[in-house]
Amino acid sequence: MAKAPTVEDVARAAGVSRQTVSNVLNTPAIVRESTRVRVQRAIADLGYRPHIAARALRTRRSSAIGIHLDPYAGGVSGVVLDRFVHALTEKAGERGLRVLLYAARSADEEIDRMRELVEGGEVDGFVVTGTFHGDPRTGWLIERDVPFVAFGRPWGIDDVDDPAHLWVDVDGAAGTRAATAHLAPRIDGPVAFLGWPRGSGTGDDRERGWRSVVGEAGVRLTSEEDVAAARAAVTAALAAPGGLGGVVCASDTLAIGARLAAASAGRDDMPIVGFDNTPAAEALGLSSVEQLPERVAEGVLGLLMGPTGSTVAPRAATAGAAHVLVEPRLVLR
Amino acid sequence: MAKAPTVEDVARAAGVSRQTVSNVLNTPAIVRESTRVRVQRAIADLGYRPHIAARALRTRRSSAIGIHLDPYAGGVSGVVLDRFVHALTEKAGERGLRVLLYAARSADEEIDRMRELVEGGEVDGFVVTGTFHGDPRTGWLIERDVPFVAFGRPWGIDDVDDPAHLWVDVDGAAGTRAATAHLAPRIDGPVAFLGWPRGSGTGDDRERGWRSVVGEAGVRLTSEEDVAAARAAVTAALAAPGGLGGVVCASDTLAIGARLAAASAGRDDMPIVGFDNTPAAEALGLSSVEQLPERVAEGVLGLLMGPTGSTVAPRAATAGAAHVLVEPRLVLR
Repeated sequence: MAKAPTVEDVARAAGVSRQTVSNVLNTPAIVRESTRVRVQRAIADLGYRPHIAARALRTRRSSAIGIHLDPYAGGVSGVVLDRFVHALTEKAGERGLRVLLYAARSADEEIDRMRELVEGGEVDGFVVTGTFHGDPRTGWLIERDVPFVAFGRPWGIDDVDDPAHLWVDVDGAAGTRAATAHLAPRIDGPVAFLGWPRGSGTGDDRERGWRSVVGEAGVRLTSEEDVAAARAAVTAALAAPGGLGGVVCASDTLAIGARLAAASAGRDDMPIVGFDNTPAAEALGLSSVEQLPERVAEGVLGLLMGPTGSTVAPRAATAGAAHVLVEPRLVLR
Repeated sequence: MAKAPTVEDVARAAGVSRQTVSNVLNTPAIVRESTRVRVQRAIADLGYRPHIAARALRTRRSSAIGIHLDPYAGGVSGVVLDRFVHALTEKAGERGLRVLLYAARSADEEIDRMRELVEGGEVDGFVVTGTFHGDPRTGWLIERDVPFVAFGRPWGIDDVDDPAHLWVDVDGAAGTRAATAHLAPRIDGPVAFLGWPRGSGTGDDRERGWRSVVGEAGVRLTSEEDVAAARAAVTAALAAPGGLGGVVCASDTLAIGARLAAASAGRDDMPIVGFDNTPAAEALGLSSVEQLPERVAEGVLGLLMGPTGSTVAPRAATAGAAHVLVEPRLVLR
C-alpha cells in the first residue's frame, strides 16, 4: 500500500508551512486567496485526506458520530432526546460506530467543539439537534463539507422540497391527527387541543394535525409547558359552557395537568392523549403519541451512511432522499 | 522534544515482529511466556506508551471517557443514568474532555468494545456502571491497568475500606434516613417503607436508612418496581389495622403507586417520599430523594483525574481517596 500523503507533503508541494496548510483546512478565511488556491490545488493533486495518516496508526479503524448534549433541564419530556441518544448508540453500535458526546453552552461554543473533533479526526460526522433559522452550526458544517444530519426539520417554506441539509424529524401532525381521529367518534362533546402558546414550529405542527380533523370550530386551550398551568386551563374549560369531551395535548406534561383537572372534576374517564409517551405518562396510564426514537436513529444513520453502510459518506455521495419524516405511533392505555 | 518510541522501536529491541508487540499489548495470553517477558522488558526500557505516537499526529490532543449505554428500557427511574450522562458530559467538558458512548449486549461484548477503544486510543478511561460481584469488566480493566471508576459501589464486606477499584456511589441509606426522620415527628401513625423484594444491594441499602430511624417494629411493604403493584400493596396496608401515617419509598415508581392508592382511599394528604426525584415525581408534586448526579460526575472525574486535572491519571497515580459517597438531598413538595 502506498503511504498516504501527509500535511508535510502538502506543505512542501505548495511551498508553505504546515501551519498554513492547517489554516486552509480549518480556518480558510484567514488565509490569503492566492495561497489558499495553491494549497487546495496541492491537496487535490496529492489526494491528501486529513486524519487518514493518524488513523492508519491505530490498530483498528474506528468511527464515531458527535452529538451535543445540553445540561439536564428536567421536565417530563426532557427524556425524549435521551431516548434518541440510547437508540442512536444502539443502532450505531450495530454498524461498528460509537457516539461521542460533547458539552457547549452556545452555538459558537459548539462550533469550537465541532472544529476540535473534526481536526482531531475524532468523529466522522455529526447529528445536530435544536436547529433554528440562520443556525451558524449548520452553516459552518456545510461550508466545510462535514457530514451531518439534523434531528428536527428546518422550519420554513422550503423545508421539505429544497432542504439546506439532510434532516430527520417526527411527523407531529400525523400523531395528533391519529389521536384526534381515534377520539372523535368515541366521545360526546368536542375533542379539544391543549397546546403551548403559538409560534413554536413543533407546537404549531402538532396543532395542525388536530385541526385537520376537527376543523375551524375546534376548541383550542393554551398553557405553558407546566403541569399546574395545564391543570388550571383544563379546569376552566371543564366548567365553561359546552365542556370538554376529550383532550389531545402537545406534550405529556400538559396531559398530566389535564388528567389532574379531570380527576378533580369527577371526570376520571375523560379521554386524554399526551405526546412523547414518557415514563410519567406510562406510570399514570395516559395514552400518548410515541416518537419512535429507534426509527429516528435509523433515519439519521441511513442518511449519514446509506441504508446498511458502516462508513460515513460525505454529503455529495448520499444519493436520493434528503430527509426522513418518521410517522409516530399512538399508544392507547 | 525527543521522539516518542514507537511499536517498531519496541519490536526491534525485542527482536520480534510488530504483530507480536501488538499481541503482547492486546492479547498477551496468546504470546509465549519467554517472548512476552522480552517484549515487556523492551517496553519498560524504552518507556514506550501505546497511542502516544498516533496522538502526536493529531492537530490537537483530545481526550474522552468511555461509558456504556444500555438500550432504553423505559420506567420512571430509567432517567437517573441519563441525568448522570448529562452531568458527566458537562463536567468533563469543563476539563476539555468528551464522553464516548458505546453499545454492548453483555459484559463480554462490553469488554470487546473497551478493548477496541483502548487499542484505538479513543478513550483515556472508563466509567463502568452496573457492576456486580465477580464482574469480568472490572477484572479486565484492572489487569490491563486501564483507568476507570465505577458508578455504584462494589457490594460486599470490603466495599469501603479495601475496594478492588475506585468507585462513586450515592448514599441511599442517608437519603431514606433523612426522609424518615423528616416525616416521623410530623405525622400520626407509623412511617412505613415501601421497598422491592429483598436481595438487591441498592434496595437493601435504602431500607437500612429507614430502619435506622423506626427500629425493628417498622412496617415494611413490598412491591415489584411497578405502579399498579405498588398501588395494590399500599391499598391493602391502608385497609389493615393500624393503617399508615406516611410512606418512604425505594423509588418514585413505588411512590406514584402509593400516591394513587392514597388518593383512592381519600388520603390525599398522606405524606409520601419517593427516591430519584424524577420528572414524574415532580409533575405529581411528590417529595423525593434527589441523587445529585452532578456531584456523582464530579466525584468520578476527581478520582479519574484529580480535583482539577484535565488528564486521566493511571490508577497508581491517584493518591488518597479510593471512593466518593455522595449524600443525596431530600426535595420536599
